Amino acid sequence: MPSPDEHIHPTATGAAAQTVASHSAPTTDGNELVFWSGWFCPFVARAWLALEEKGIPYRASGFLALRSEVAEEYHNAEYKEVNPYKKEPEFLAISPKGLVPAITYRGKPLHESLVICDFLEEAYPDTPSLYPKDPYDRAQVRLAIDLVGKSFLPPFFRLLQSQEPEKQAQALEEVTEALKKYSKKIVGPYYMGSQFTLADIVLAPWVARLPIVEKHRNFSASAVGDKFVQWVKAVQARESFKKILSEEKYYEEIYGRYLRDEAMSEAAKATRAGRAIP
Amino acid sequence: MPSPDEHIHPTATGAAAQTVASHSAPTTDGNELVFWSGWFCPFVARAWLALEEKGIPYRASGFLALRSEVAEEYHNAEYKEVNPYKKEPEFLAISPKGLVPAITYRGKPLHESLVICDFLEEAYPDTPSLYPKDPYDRAQVRLAIDLVGKSFLPPFFRLLQSQEPEKQAQALEEVTEALKKYSKKIVGPYYMGSQFTLADIVLAPWVARLPIVEKHRNFSASAVGDKFVQWVKAVQARESFKKILSEEKYYEEIYGRYLRDEAMSEAAKATRAGRAIP
Ligand SMILES: N[C@@H](CCC(=O)N[C@@H](CS)C(=O)NCC(=O)O)C(=O)O
Ligand SMILES: N[C@@H](CCC(=O)N[C@@H](CS)C(=O)NCC(=O)O)C(=O)O
Repeated sequence: MPSPDEHIHPTATGAAAQTVASHSAPTTDGNELVFWSGWFCPFVARAWLALEEKGIPYRASGFLALRSEVAEEYHNAEYKEVNPYKKEPEFLAISPKGLVPAITYRGKPLHESLVICDFLEEAYPDTPSLYPKDPYDRAQVRLAIDLVGKSFLPPFFRLLQSQEPEKQAQALEEVTEALKKYSKKIVGPYYMGSQFTLADIVLAPWVARLPIVEKHRNFSASAVGDKFVQWVKAVQARESFKKILSEEKYYEEIYGRYLRDEAMSEAAKATRAGRAIP
Repeated sequence: MPSPDEHIHPTATGAAAQTVASHSAPTTDGNELVFWSGWFCPFVARAWLALEEKGIPYRASGFLALRSEVAEEYHNAEYKEVNPYKKEPEFLAISPKGLVPAITYRGKPLHESLVICDFLEEAYPDTPSLYPKDPYDRAQVRLAIDLVGKSFLPPFFRLLQSQEPEKQAQALEEVTEALKKYSKKIVGPYYMGSQFTLADIVLAPWVARLPIVEKHRNFSASAVGDKFVQWVKAVQARESFKKILSEEKYYEEIYGRYLRDEAMSEAAKATRAGRAIP
């Protein structure tokens, strides 16, 4: 097994780099919120979308900020923090599995993308809500989140990592099937209708990663259906989505390791072992 | 592979049978809530605990009520509904994977134990809350839920189903490790302190199932630690918990199929295939 991606691109690029730059100073609203992040991570993207949608003042720190500020030697120092074998104690104190995203809110740490999103929803009640108001509608958002976690993500990682054609075909079918189930419930333009909610955010980061499986694994958005294609377009047009995107070629670089099944992330290792993605 | 458990005990027993009996008439509060259930199911138990904790009027329907009311022929008819190969369309319309628990609320269907719990929390705001008030504390509850789903449940099913000693030992270690992580955060007597929350409910059903792995798989609660043993006692003493318990011997019967790796539930099949538990 090759060692993990030492050559990971050190900084956000494109629009994301500007977004990072504009969030590199301490916040002035008294609720110092630090966002521990990585430009390349789809789980980070969920929390990042939530922050941008809500317009919450935050300071991009950790990998995200450092990567846009520092040189190669710093990059190596940071890199250790996401190396599954060498997680820095300082970061593990914030995120016990050593995974991004994490936040510190008035000094208190929190991890897990969806837990962070729910926290932002509740800690900043005066910002635009990521849930509908009606309890039954809110439950529909939670069902979408459940679907993405259980039925889309595991086969998506298997699709990336599988090397044998039959396994790829099987994973492709499961990915397509999961997205069909998701699509069936899309009201349009967003999942719940005109409101952009967590039901969109939970899956939106993969809109930027579908080109990878389109190119290398025969994924087809139109095979999922027209409703899905329309939803993808709506997400791509969303301001918050555009603001956190890095340049496409850098995603390609990252996912090369997955496509050769050389990735050593916790998610990649869990997928390889037939275990739950952490 | 033997066919699925045709000999599953048809009704709730013990205290649970009385609880079912007292909920077999339509509710009179105008919010007709029907609880589609099975006495044997730990996921059902989560929703059931939430209903009891909140004192929400509900009518026990589906498997739970029918089983306590009807004879063997009805039982067989119902049984088809949980047979993975023969899910009745009427139940699939309520719960798309054909899994219990589900509810219908004013005729509208909802499934997934935790989605149901959150729905009850929001649809009945005047009942005792299953979350703390502070957003950061609420996030701790959600981290506990995340831990149970990702780190406890998958190895728990593997522990039951594994036949080889090395695999059992590996699963036992993972189960114990997950419960140690959970325990570290227990404030006592309950997870978050004096309030009984979803952080307790998400795991409490397995308190009634640990004797199975204690007896057959060398699980030891004291190996997890004293804090865990104390938490188990606090759960066992909780009124809602006592009210939904069937007699111990019937759990033994159900889990026999898991212990021989003959169970054909969706969870058992997913575990066997190294897939995410639905
Ligand atoms: N369940 C976590 C997953 C986070 C995650 O896997 N993050 C990756 C980057 S995309 C990470 O930090 N990887 C480091 C590692 O795997 O060691 C969440 O939703 O926040
Ligand atoms: N994730 C679901 C799981 C529910 C579940 O697995 N229920 C089982 C009974 S314990 C079931 O209905 N099994 C029928 C089957 O597997 O076909 C939840 O939390 O509600």
